[in-house]
Amino acid sequence: MGNRPFNINTFIGCEKSYDESDVVLFGVPFDGTTSFRPGTRFAMQAIRNDSFGLETYSPYLNKDIEDVGIYDGGDLELPFGNTKKVLDEILAYSQEVLRDNKKFLMVGGEHLVSLSTIKAAYEKYPNLHVIHIDAHTDLRDDYLGEKLSHASVIRRSHDFLGDGRIFQFGIRSGMKEEFEWAKEHTYLERFSLDTLQEKIQELTDVPVYITIDLDVLDPGVFPGTGTPEPGGITYRELLEAIKQFQSLNQIVAADIVELSPQYDPSGASTAMACKTVREMLLTLAD
Amino acid sequence: MGNRPFNINTFIGCEKSYDESDVVLFGVPFDGTTSFRPGTRFAMQAIRNDSFGLETYSPYLNKDIEDVGIYDGGDLELPFGNTKKVLDEILAYSQEVLRDNKKFLMVGGEHLVSLSTIKAAYEKYPNLHVIHIDAHTDLRDDYLGEKLSHASVIRRSHDFLGDGRIFQFGIRSGMKEEFEWAKEHTYLERFSLDTLQEKIQELTDVPVYITIDLDVLDPGVFPGTGTPEPGGITYRELLEAIKQFQSLNQIVAADIVELSPQYDPSGASTAMACKTVREMLLTLAD
Amino acid sequence: MGNRPFNINTFIGCEKSYDESDVVLFGVPFDGTTSFRPGTRFAMQAIRNDSFGLETYSPYLNKDIEDVGIYDGGDLELPFGNTKKVLDEILAYSQEVLRDNKKFLMVGGEHLVSLSTIKAAYEKYPNLHVIHIDAHTDLRDDYLGEKLSHASVIRRSHDFLGDGRIFQFGIRSGMKEEFEWAKEHTYLERFSLDTLQEKIQELTDVPVYITIDLDVLDPGVFPGTGTPEPGGITYRELLEAIKQFQSLNQIVAADIVELSPQYDPSGASTAMACKTVREMLLTLAD
Amino acid sequence: MGNRPFNINTFIGCEKSYDESDVVLFGVPFDGTTSFRPGTRFAMQAIRNDSFGLETYSPYLNKDIEDVGIYDGGDLELPFGNTKKVLDEILAYSQEVLRDNKKFLMVGGEHLVSLSTIKAAYEKYPNLHVIHIDAHTDLRDDYLGEKLSHASVIRRSHDFLGDGRIFQFGIRSGMKEEFEWAKEHTYLERFSLDTLQEKIQELTDVPVYITIDLDVLDPGVFPGTGTPEPGGITYRELLEAIKQFQSLNQIVAADIVELSPQYDPSGASTAMACKTVREMLLTLAD
Amino acid sequence: MGNRPFNINTFIGCEKSYDESDVVLFGVPFDGTTSFRPGTRFAMQAIRNDSFGLETYSPYLNKDIEDVGIYDGGDLELPFGNTKKVLDEILAYSQEVLRDNKKFLMVGGEHLVSLSTIKAAYEKYPNLHVIHIDAHTDLRDDYLGEKLSHASVIRRSHDFLGDGRIFQFGIRSGMKEEFEWAKEHTYLERFSLDTLQEKIQELTDVPVYITIDLDVLDPGVFPGTGTPEPGGITYRELLEAIKQFQSLNQIVAADIVELSPQYDPSGASTAMACKTVREMLLTLAD
Amino acid sequence: MGNRPFNINTFIGCEKSYDESDVVLFGVPFDGTTSFRPGTRFAMQAIRNDSFGLETYSPYLNKDIEDVGIYDGGDLELPFGNTKKVLDEILAYSQEVLRDNKKFLMVGGEHLVSLSTIKAAYEKYPNLHVIHIDAHTDLRDDYLGEKLSHASVIRRSHDFLGDGRIFQFGIRSGMKEEFEWAKEHTYLERFSLDTLQEKIQELTDVPVYITIDLDVLDPGVFPGTGTPEPGGITYRELLEAIKQFQSLNQIVAADIVELSPQYDPSGASTAMACKTVREMLLTLAD
Repeated sequence: MGNRPFNINTFIGCEKSYDESDVVLFGVPFDGTTSFRPGTRFAMQAIRNDSFGLETYSPYLNKDIEDVGIYDGGDLELPFGNTKKVLDEILAYSQEVLRDNKKFLMVGGEHLVSLSTIKAAYEKYPNLHVIHIDAHTDLRDDYLGEKLSHASVIRRSHDFLGDGRIFQFGIRSGMKEEFEWAKEHTYLERFSLDTLQEKIQELTDVPVYITIDLDVLDPGVFPGTGTPEPGGITYRELLEAIKQFQSLNQIVAADIVELSPQYDPSGASTAMACKTVREMLLTLAD
Repeated sequence: MGNRPFNINTFIGCEKSYDESDVVLFGVPFDGTTSFRPGTRFAMQAIRNDSFGLETYSPYLNKDIEDVGIYDGGDLELPFGNTKKVLDEILAYSQEVLRDNKKFLMVGGEHLVSLSTIKAAYEKYPNLHVIHIDAHTDLRDDYLGEKLSHASVIRRSHDFLGDGRIFQFGIRSGMKEEFEWAKEHTYLERFSLDTLQEKIQELTDVPVYITIDLDVLDPGVFPGTGTPEPGGITYRELLEAIKQFQSLNQIVAADIVELSPQYDPSGASTAMACKTVREMLLTLAD
Repeated sequence: MGNRPFNINTFIGCEKSYDESDVVLFGVPFDGTTSFRPGTRFAMQAIRNDSFGLETYSPYLNKDIEDVGIYDGGDLELPFGNTKKVLDEILAYSQEVLRDNKKFLMVGGEHLVSLSTIKAAYEKYPNLHVIHIDAHTDLRDDYLGEKLSHASVIRRSHDFLGDGRIFQFGIRSGMKEEFEWAKEHTYLERFSLDTLQEKIQELTDVPVYITIDLDVLDPGVFPGTGTPEPGGITYRELLEAIKQFQSLNQIVAADIVELSPQYDPSGASTAMACKTVREMLLTLAD
Repeated sequence: MGNRPFNINTFIGCEKSYDESDVVLFGVPFDGTTSFRPGTRFAMQAIRNDSFGLETYSPYLNKDIEDVGIYDGGDLELPFGNTKKVLDEILAYSQEVLRDNKKFLMVGGEHLVSLSTIKAAYEKYPNLHVIHIDAHTDLRDDYLGEKLSHASVIRRSHDFLGDGRIFQFGIRSGMKEEFEWAKEHTYLERFSLDTLQEKIQELTDVPVYITIDLDVLDPGVFPGTGTPEPGGITYRELLEAIKQFQSLNQIVAADIVELSPQYDPSGASTAMACKTVREMLLTLAD
Repeated sequence: MGNRPFNINTFIGCEKSYDESDVVLFGVPFDGTTSFRPGTRFAMQAIRNDSFGLETYSPYLNKDIEDVGIYDGGDLELPFGNTKKVLDEILAYSQEVLRDNKKFLMVGGEHLVSLSTIKAAYEKYPNLHVIHIDAHTDLRDDYLGEKLSHASVIRRSHDFLGDGRIFQFGIRSGMKEEFEWAKEHTYLERFSLDTLQEKIQELTDVPVYITIDLDVLDPGVFPGTGTPEPGGITYRELLEAIKQFQSLNQIVAADIVELSPQYDPSGASTAMACKTVREMLLTLAD
Repeated sequence: MGNRPFNINTFIGCEKSYDESDVVLFGVPFDGTTSFRPGTRFAMQAIRNDSFGLETYSPYLNKDIEDVGIYDGGDLELPFGNTKKVLDEILAYSQEVLRDNKKFLMVGGEHLVSLSTIKAAYEKYPNLHVIHIDAHTDLRDDYLGEKLSHASVIRRSHDFLGDGRIFQFGIRSGMKEEFEWAKEHTYLERFSLDTLQEKIQELTDVPVYITIDLDVLDPGVFPGTGTPEPGGITYRELLEAIKQFQSLNQIVAADIVELSPQYDPSGASTAMACKTVREMLLTLAD
């Protein structure tokens, strides 16, 4: 008895070892540049706890977490108040996973943390394309003078990815300048995901990174986020998008960000995050 | 003054006596086999309190609670920690109501309690058919070794009803085995209620029991339940289903289960339960 | 430094002076006749605080709060427990704004406060028509004996407006008598906004007052209100309605009522109110 | 079965009829003049529900609710938005109970409602003395112009009681003028209950009315009230006071006011209110 | 990297292996006989999460968790709805720890679970004495017919311990019969811990089991429990008691029960539980 | 009307201009180095809103806010994620106020922000002594490698103040090393404020800065803070300390930090912060 690990706490069903796994799940509990309401640092822990209300089997994809190789690597331990160092550590971990020829699903934290995971994926796959599902443009060149901000993560990614690589969906908030800038540099669909399927057909055989900011969901159905932006999509629409991802032949990594359990007193938003994690893990684990 | 009953607490408008009534409303405050998050024991009391935010008139059905005969029988007092005895007491009460040639609407409590009310209905109407609206299959043969569990209530009902009698809608969660089993033994529509109307046409003239697990609703709009399962239906879709029930000529009883007011800090889920109770009472009270 | 006003608290971007502005925003923190769950008195303060989670630019209308002239006049200070005096003070303020040839957006408070703002608009524009978006009929002649009640505000407005002037949409709750009365005296669409566009075409060139009771939204997505009435519209449907308002050439004033932040622990309902305020301000500020 | 009253909802153990009882418990769900945070209208219902977490036996007084005659008369149904009429109805009910030679324990609601119950007691017992336990002086002559306000209830009571009849304890908030006024007209102990026992000895054989505003408790231990005033007494000090009341030979009636369950998410304040009700009922029921 | 256990979740500082440790900490997430408000099943997980807000060093005892040998054995996995089997599994685990000559600190769960841990300690130390800190007598012979209930745990323990072995402190709630029964069979101090030190002196050299029901604390300062009983002790009084425990030379095991995080929205009660766990671990780890 | 400032939002009664005032109140909404639970950024706004539940008159000090000269300077607008720049801006503002020969009361934010206000006071008054009321030592040389952390604010202040200038009270949490270090460099009373009066007598005529970390209060009575540390003082003990401050002849500035309204669902902690602000403003305003 003495050595049985009674209290390892993983996402439900993710009980394979690192070596047995093709996909690594890990958390990045960082919300240091959040300007309005912090709290995404608590997301991954809440998701692990509440994942036990979920089945491991997905009737949508007809696959089971227990049948595929997924390792839950826990949360990164991050230095406080040093955004640069935080981003470096996320980058290093992501590079290591990719070097071992595994895919990863990163769970934030605020959206800025995707900058490092996208960069790691880009380094390995220079032809990387990014599918970005979000309420916000995230295209500011800076936010209150800071270049590294949750509000500029896609703009910073464009710095290395360049034009024609970023596909944005569901966007319904930003400054006028951001929408203007997007016209030249990214593909941006406002308000909905109607053109996602069409764009996926263009991306079938290139390496794709998917970044899902959960605030793309309407705050009426998903209140658990720091910057609620009304007018978003329903959870069934997000499930539909994930089903469409199955046509992509080269998803190399993905992330799910911006759950803030502090604003989710009922647990319903956390449940949505849990289910999204399950569906994305099964999507990655081909 | 002395004898005026100032504090009888009924569902709004249900002020008829037992003898004057054709329909009996009663609560079953039991959540003893709930594995994830308990709390449905508080449902009926919350529903009674908040029903006073509702009108007695339904513009959907153009009927008024005050115009029909409904008795609110209060909540059953149940022994603690003895699942078998709890089920026996629910059975006895349900039998008594049916013996008096009344219909009933039972409000849970967790879904397991429907086992006794369905059984009582089946005893009186051996040709009973069951319409089951739920997020979960509830078809496990046992749950952690227990045969009597919220997760096996429909399987246990099949034990006596047999094949061809159970019609499941909105199902989006379960083990793979349960979905497989359903193919042989029940009618099961995944994810939505699209085929409900069609199936109702087959059931027009047989005795029907309707069991509504409120977690069929998307937790984004109905967070107040113990096991939130994202991807569910909207409340307008549930209202639509109730409208379709009007074509059934022999609804003999019904239940509404799994509201957990603990996870409903705003009261919105309780309001949905209240309105569902009103519409189902008016549906039963022909 | 000494004289800089560090803590004026306005709705985001509303930093013009009264004289520079064509539109005046003001709050009416009154919930004195609320029968079920009070709390709308806290709405405007919550909206001001949380408006800073919003952008000033609307991608829906392609306009920016900062580009138009809007003055945030703060909240009226109201005498307690004296409904009549409260209504008088709202009337006086509204008259003053209209006399200065400005439009206003009033934020409640409970719905009764619209009686004074509608009256002020009617006095200036005798041909006034009212678009009323709500879950409830609000057509009672009295409520528990009181003529001045949140439940009778539209009926009281009819007292001076007369037949043919009131257009109600989204209505799904009321006494049978109210629905009957409406058949003779108002235009009333039940459950949805499907005929709004058609009616707007009839009202293109007459003076229009728009009163939005936010409980028209489904409480599943908008729980932050005192009398949640399930079966309502989504936030995207409300946004669509506001887009349709752009065809109206003579909107003279408007209001948004019945947010109750007490029942909005996540802030999502307040975010919806904020966005509705922004869209309506931009609608008024032509 | 049909006629069994399954859902009468009384305070625990208060199951005697009016005629069998010496003490009447009743609720007054009114918070109409509350200026800061409303919600005391929900107090009595919460107290009834949560009283079932309590034993009927008091080890402090060595008495049991079930052994004495107490009738729970429910809540008064009150007209909305008409303070004067509300006070008249409370007065009428209180007079009726006293006329039948019973005592009562009234549970508010805001403190203003005590004006009517004190008046009824004074009419029957012209030599009435009042023990007032509170955080606030409640001695304003008016509040924002209103003579009938929660902040002036003791001043209004002084209008008929006159000097030398009012004994205030625990007071730690008020305008300077109120503290000055008290020097001439009432006995007022600031901050604590240290002199309560001494004063009780002076009041042993005169008719005494006890009014307990629960906000006398420190909001740290009793947050469930509309106007939290830090620096108050502990619950054990309140229990001690109740024990001292046992020396009074002529307590004719009492009240407990200002619980606001809205601000009591844990239920701890409601539990304190429940226990205070039990102890005061047993104190009255000699 | 691959094999680093990133997400083992222990109480802060408890990172020794079983073999290195003298004290075993484990959780029992069971609340199956809770009659009023369930939720203690969530206690140990909340305690582990929030223990990271605590230091490992105690300035009260001048000891540090990291300097002593403590193993966090996780939570027992328990069968649902089968009280008897649950108690058997707790017994088996406790016996195993004691057989390995270790002490344990068990964290509940509801108080009934102490029955098995006390029994295990009694089997190994037949001269066992029990110090019982609680708001409630827990001396019922049965509760609604059930012999195995949270309300009878001390009575059931008396079945095998016999007279003169149980010392109860802080008791302020129970049926009259329980207080009477205690006079013959246990030592029971009502309301406070004043005689604890004196009794500890009698118990210096006998084997002692300490069971702390956290509801002994006043619910004003510790709301996070299912059955709040006002009039309890302060947290400083509980700390003082733990300091007094240092005089006991043979504490063989202990438990801390009845934290219910559901009723602790601020986390303050969980923080108290965490600190109590730390102090008791250091007390056991001599 | 147009120019009336309807919505300036100050602490109650603080309506003097900067020039008329001797004391400046300002807020510092920064929680960037908070490691456990962020949220103090919301403190000052909550305090302003809820101060309207308070009287302007203090019966403890027999003074009234309206009779003295206090200017509410609002909140500093701070750059995000740049701790160094944040501290610089606080320093600059504090220096400006002191240069104008005014005192200030700063309200945090997390405790680190006191570093700048203490430094500004020290620059003007090189003989500055600091009274530090807190649960935590705050004497770490660094926290996870960061020199500028909430956990090292007093240590950093010692860097310039040196030995013999810092007086710490109520301390009950820290690493063993911090308690050891304090023995050489500060005066530190553990657990209580018992020696405060004695030390105040030593400091009667030197310049004194008072920094109050509200987590010195027991989290049972003051849950609204990020790092709750059980075993603290009561609010009456804090009031008593403030009364003792009246003997100090040279209080030059003060601060109140670490209220986190996120963990204060009832508002009771915010009420305590409000009252502490009032008492400290009156203490400063001689």
